[in-house]
Amino acid sequence: MSRILTIGAAQLGPIAPEESRASAVNRMIELLKQAGDRGCNFVVFPELALTTFFPRYYEEDISKMDRYYEREMPGPETRPLFEEASKRGIGFYLGYAELTPDGHRYNTAVLVDETGKVTGKYRKVHLPGHSEYEGQRPWQHLEKRYFEPGDLGFGVWRQHGGIIGMALCNDRRWPETYRVMSLKGAELIVLGYNTPDVNTSAFEPNHLRMFHNHLTMQANAYMNSCFVVGTAKAGVEDGCMLIGGSCIAQPSGEIVSLATTVEDELITSTIDLDLAKMGKETVFNYARHRRIEHYGIIASQTGVELPPELADAAE
Amino acid sequence: MSRILTIGAAQLGPIAPEESRASAVNRMIELLKQAGDRGCNFVVFPELALTTFFPRYYEEDISKMDRYYEREMPGPETRPLFEEASKRGIGFYLGYAELTPDGHRYNTAVLVDETGKVTGKYRKVHLPGHSEYEGQRPWQHLEKRYFEPGDLGFGVWRQHGGIIGMALCNDRRWPETYRVMSLKGAELIVLGYNTPDVNTSAFEPNHLRMFHNHLTMQANAYMNSCFVVGTAKAGVEDGCMLIGGSCIAQPSGEIVSLATTVEDELITSTIDLDLAKMGKETVFNYARHRRIEHYGIIASQTGVELPPELADAAE
Repeated sequence: MSRILTIGAAQLGPIAPEESRASAVNRMIELLKQAGDRGCNFVVFPELALTTFFPRYYEEDISKMDRYYEREMPGPETRPLFEEASKRGIGFYLGYAELTPDGHRYNTAVLVDETGKVTGKYRKVHLPGHSEYEGQRPWQHLEKRYFEPGDLGFGVWRQHGGIIGMALCNDRRWPETYRVMSLKGAELIVLGYNTPDVNTSAFEPNHLRMFHNHLTMQANAYMNSCFVVGTAKAGVEDGCMLIGGSCIAQPSGEIVSLATTVEDELITSTIDLDLAKMGKETVFNYARHRRIEHYGIIASQTGVELPPELADAAE
Repeated sequence: MSRILTIGAAQLGPIAPEESRASAVNRMIELLKQAGDRGCNFVVFPELALTTFFPRYYEEDISKMDRYYEREMPGPETRPLFEEASKRGIGFYLGYAELTPDGHRYNTAVLVDETGKVTGKYRKVHLPGHSEYEGQRPWQHLEKRYFEPGDLGFGVWRQHGGIIGMALCNDRRWPETYRVMSLKGAELIVLGYNTPDVNTSAFEPNHLRMFHNHLTMQANAYMNSCFVVGTAKAGVEDGCMLIGGSCIAQPSGEIVSLATTVEDELITSTIDLDLAKMGKETVFNYARHRRIEHYGIIASQTGVELPPELADAAE
C-alpha cells in the first residue's frame, strides 16, 4: 500500500447550542466533498464535532445533558457522513460525546476506514477542567463532570498504509500521550480540539493559547518522529471564542499546513509517511537511546513528590 | 529566601583542541565578572565547557583521551573559577568530562552554590551518537564510546530559593528528562550543549538544528511548567560549526533571553520562580490530571514494539 497520503484537517466553525445533528453533519459532508475534490484519503474532524462544546454549561443532573451524547456510532443522524465518506473512499477521525448502554460517558473519537467501517476507538484520557460549578469563571469547563477518564489507553491502528494513533484536545499538552503511541509505532497522530482563547483558570496572556496549541503539537511531532494533525472547532460559540489554528505538523516539527479562519475550512497536505522513519532510525531510535531505568516515576507516581531530602529541608 | 533570581547563560565560543584549561577557565572567569556586574545570582556554563568537543575524534585506545577528562572537581586548574564565583556570591552549573578514580567515564555537570561548594552532580543519561568509527561522517560523534550512560538518574536540588534540576545536551530532546525532574518539583532546569549545525547521521536541512534546539526546550518548559536555561558552546571548533542560540525560556514556553553570537557571550534574565506555580497548580496539576494507569510502557519498554495485532497483520 502506498505510504503517500493526502490528508485533510476539516476545521469547523462554531456550532450553536440549538444546532441540529443534521446541520452539523451536513457541514461536515460539505467539507468531505471538498476533500474528495482535493484528492484526500483521510480527513480529521474536531473533538465533539456534532454539538456545541456543552461542558461550558452546568447542570446539576447530568442526565439533562443526554441530548449532547451519541448512543451509537454511526447512528441514524451520523450515518450520512459515513456513507458520503465511503462513497468517496475517504477514511476519517470523528470526535463526539459517547453514552454507553450501561450509562458511562466518555469524550470519544473513532477511526473510520475508507469503506466507512469503524476500525478504532479512543476515549479521552486527560480530561481538563473541573467537576463542580465554579462561579468565578466566565463560563465553565466541566469535562471532569460530564466524562469519565478514558479506559482504553492510547491505541494505534494499522490503516492507510501507516500506523495511526488518536488523542483529544488537552491530551496534546501531555508528552505521555504521544510517547505511549510512538512506543507502539505510531507514525501519524490525529486529534481534535475545542480550546477557548482565554484561560479561565488563571491569568495567562491570550496570545499564548495559540502558541501553546502549536508548540505542543510541533515539539511532540519532532520528539516522537511522527506526523500530528490537530483540528479545531473554532470561532464564537454561544459567546465563547474558540481558537482555530488547525494544522498538520510533520516529523521535523514544522507545520506544513495551517488554517487561516475560525470557520468551516479544509486544509490539506500530501504527506509521505516514510518521513517518520529518519527520526525513528537515528536521533530517536528508542532501542538505542532510551534509558528506562531512570524513567520509573513517570509511570508510578501521579503527582509531584519532593525527594525526601528536599521535603525535609527548610527553605 | 527570595524567589527572584538574576540568571545568566554564559555561552562559550569554540575551544580549540590545543587550548589549555587555564585559557578556558579564564574565559569563564571573564564571563563571571560580567555576570557579577549585571547582578547575577546563578550562571549556566556549557556542556564539556573546559575542552574542545573531543567525541568528534576517534581513538582506538580510549585512555589516549584522558587529557580531556577531569579527575576531580574542582581541581587545580578549575579552582580559580570556583574562587571567583564564590567571591562574587554566584552559584553555577558546569559541564565537563569526568574520569572517576575507578576508571569510569561520564559526561557530567555539577551544581555549585554561592559559596563555591559542589551541591549536586548529574551524569548524562541520553548519550547520542555511536561507539565505533563511522567513515561516512564528516566528523565523528563518539559519545557512546567515550562515556557510560549516567548512573545517577535525574536529581533535583533545593538551591537559590527554588528547586533546580540538571540535564546535558541531547537530554533536552527527550521529554522523559524534564518529566522526571518536574515530578520531583523542579522549577528550573539547566543544561549545556555542543550541537553541530549539521546532522551527520541523515539528511536534515541545517536550519532545523536551531529550530529543534529551541522547540524542545520551549515546549518542555511549558509542559512541565518550569524555567529552562540552555547554554551552548558555539562557533567553529576545529572545522565543526556548533550552533549558538543559548536561551532562557520561562514556564509559558516563551524565550525571554537569547544569545545573538557564536562567541563568548553572557545573556541574563531576572526571573521570578513563582511564575512556575501557575501551571503546576492549574493545567499541569499532575495530581489532578495525570493518568499513570495508561503510561506503563514509557518506563517498562525501551524500544518500539508494535502491538501483537499490528505486528501480525499484513501491511
